[in-house]
Amino acid sequence: MCLDAEMMIVAVDIDILISEVGPRDGLQNANGIMATAAKKAWISAQARAGCREVEVCSFVPPKLVKGMADATDIVAHGLTLPGLTVAVLAPNLRGAVDAMAAGAHKITLPVSVSESHSQANVRKSRAQMVEEVRAVCAHRDQLEAGQRPVIEAGMTTAFGCTIEGNVPERDVLETAVACVEAGADEVGLADTSGMASPQQVKRLFKLTKAEVDDALQGVHLHNTYGLGLANAMAAVEAGATALDSSLGGLGGCPFAPGASGNIVTEDLVFMLESQGLRTGIDLAGLIECREIIQAALPDDVLYGYVAEVGLPKTFK
Amino acid sequence: MCLDAEMMIVAVDIDILISEVGPRDGLQNANGIMATAAKKAWISAQARAGCREVEVCSFVPPKLVKGMADATDIVAHGLTLPGLTVAVLAPNLRGAVDAMAAGAHKITLPVSVSESHSQANVRKSRAQMVEEVRAVCAHRDQLEAGQRPVIEAGMTTAFGCTIEGNVPERDVLETAVACVEAGADEVGLADTSGMASPQQVKRLFKLTKAEVDDALQGVHLHNTYGLGLANAMAAVEAGATALDSSLGGLGGCPFAPGASGNIVTEDLVFMLESQGLRTGIDLAGLIECREIIQAALPDDVLYGYVAEVGLPKTFK
Repeated sequence: MCLDAEMMIVAVDIDILISEVGPRDGLQNANGIMATAAKKAWISAQARAGCREVEVCSFVPPKLVKGMADATDIVAHGLTLPGLTVAVLAPNLRGAVDAMAAGAHKITLPVSVSESHSQANVRKSRAQMVEEVRAVCAHRDQLEAGQRPVIEAGMTTAFGCTIEGNVPERDVLETAVACVEAGADEVGLADTSGMASPQQVKRLFKLTKAEVDDALQGVHLHNTYGLGLANAMAAVEAGATALDSSLGGLGGCPFAPGASGNIVTEDLVFMLESQGLRTGIDLAGLIECREIIQAALPDDVLYGYVAEVGLPKTFK
Repeated sequence: MCLDAEMMIVAVDIDILISEVGPRDGLQNANGIMATAAKKAWISAQARAGCREVEVCSFVPPKLVKGMADATDIVAHGLTLPGLTVAVLAPNLRGAVDAMAAGAHKITLPVSVSESHSQANVRKSRAQMVEEVRAVCAHRDQLEAGQRPVIEAGMTTAFGCTIEGNVPERDVLETAVACVEAGADEVGLADTSGMASPQQVKRLFKLTKAEVDDALQGVHLHNTYGLGLANAMAAVEAGATALDSSLGGLGGCPFAPGASGNIVTEDLVFMLESQGLRTGIDLAGLIECREIIQAALPDDVLYGYVAEVGLPKTFK
């Protein structure tokens, strides 16, 4: 969530901030590569539908991750959209510096709690990634007030690792605290492997909250085993006010085998709004955004129940 | 849940009773018609995997509902399987009498809370269906002790109706109380339309429990809008100890347009067992049962995440 004062005023009329990660997490793991114009149309359409935050791209070497060479251009487009928090992912200082230069409002650095996943994902140890967060925050602090992005440390593999298996909760807590001490404004809990269960989400969210307080707002969940929405509900009940999701469930993690698919934004919005939890998002408008993806990525499958079945007449 | 003394002793080593409804709800709404031998193989395989209760068929006029002409034969097969509660659905007294004659352990009568759905589903009003429950219970009471099946009234459309929209909670409570007063041993809350949300499930379960106490054990949920597992978790948190589900998510309701798909047994078992909630079911054995359905119903789609992705290494 953007800490900029103007954004905070806008955000009081919602209960849960949905951070759309499709243009980053989704596209990074899609079969096809989306054209820059289509990305811009998608981001604009989601902003029009009421999405307050979109993770629009990642600042990564184009050789390593396909389809992100237009990152600076995409951020510039996002910045033209009123009220939108332009979030990005950066795996290291170099990417974060580029993201700051581009003007991103929020930069998430993935800090794997699992050492094995950390090496596979960013070729650094967990301790080295904490130092990377520190270096990014130092760079941020040199910017003028008002130009400083929110720095989030995403605790990847927080709920389990496809390589290491169970991830000790104390490691998550230690890593979260270390990142906040290194200067991160926020930490997020990421179920990179999709292995989380509802009670686990509740417990770990509360434990982490007890350590880092307001620095923890949200979770990033995958739907690998179909538990995504149940886990999202558990997070909300535990106090989460921000949830990552992806339009059409696009996404996953190429370095966590078998971990495919973010939770579906359309279904998440449906679940929350059905219970009176306000997201600020117009669901019909959101569902229309799927057409942009389907046209631009004909070889990718879009998931989602609500878009398939249509909204029930009881949905307001 | 079967109230037979022997069954209750068996059931203390589980936390949640999964009632597999695929051979009834699933097959009633499948594209293909399953051969009797395949049904028997399926039911046997699920019992071997540890399923304690299977709704094996419905006692309905073969002209109205396809694929249930072998109901008596299927019940007889179920009765040969040690420890299995043989549950069936019957829409009226005539079907229930046949089911009792066949020896079913448990008979569920659908009592629609929505008048419109009641007429569409069973061509009777809600009040007429409560009288049908009374007549069925009177017939049951004439049987010798030890021969009497459990009679459950399933509160269909309890969470909303595709025809009427919202269903008032007071109507659900009144109907549940009326069915218990008419002699039903149990009432269940059924999300026929798939429109339920987690907070709604929790609230209505607790409200109903306050009215009928131990007569309410479980819920029957659909996954129409993808909220099935989130709703199941909500039910468990509210105190439910029995959940209906269908292998491969087969099922729906032909008289509630758009309401397709029960919650997937495999994913439900995964979710519960991941949290230490014991179902008594061997998940690997359960997943193997899918092969029987796939071979017998080549034109039907099986759903489910766990079966697709495979069990994570952390799953015990």
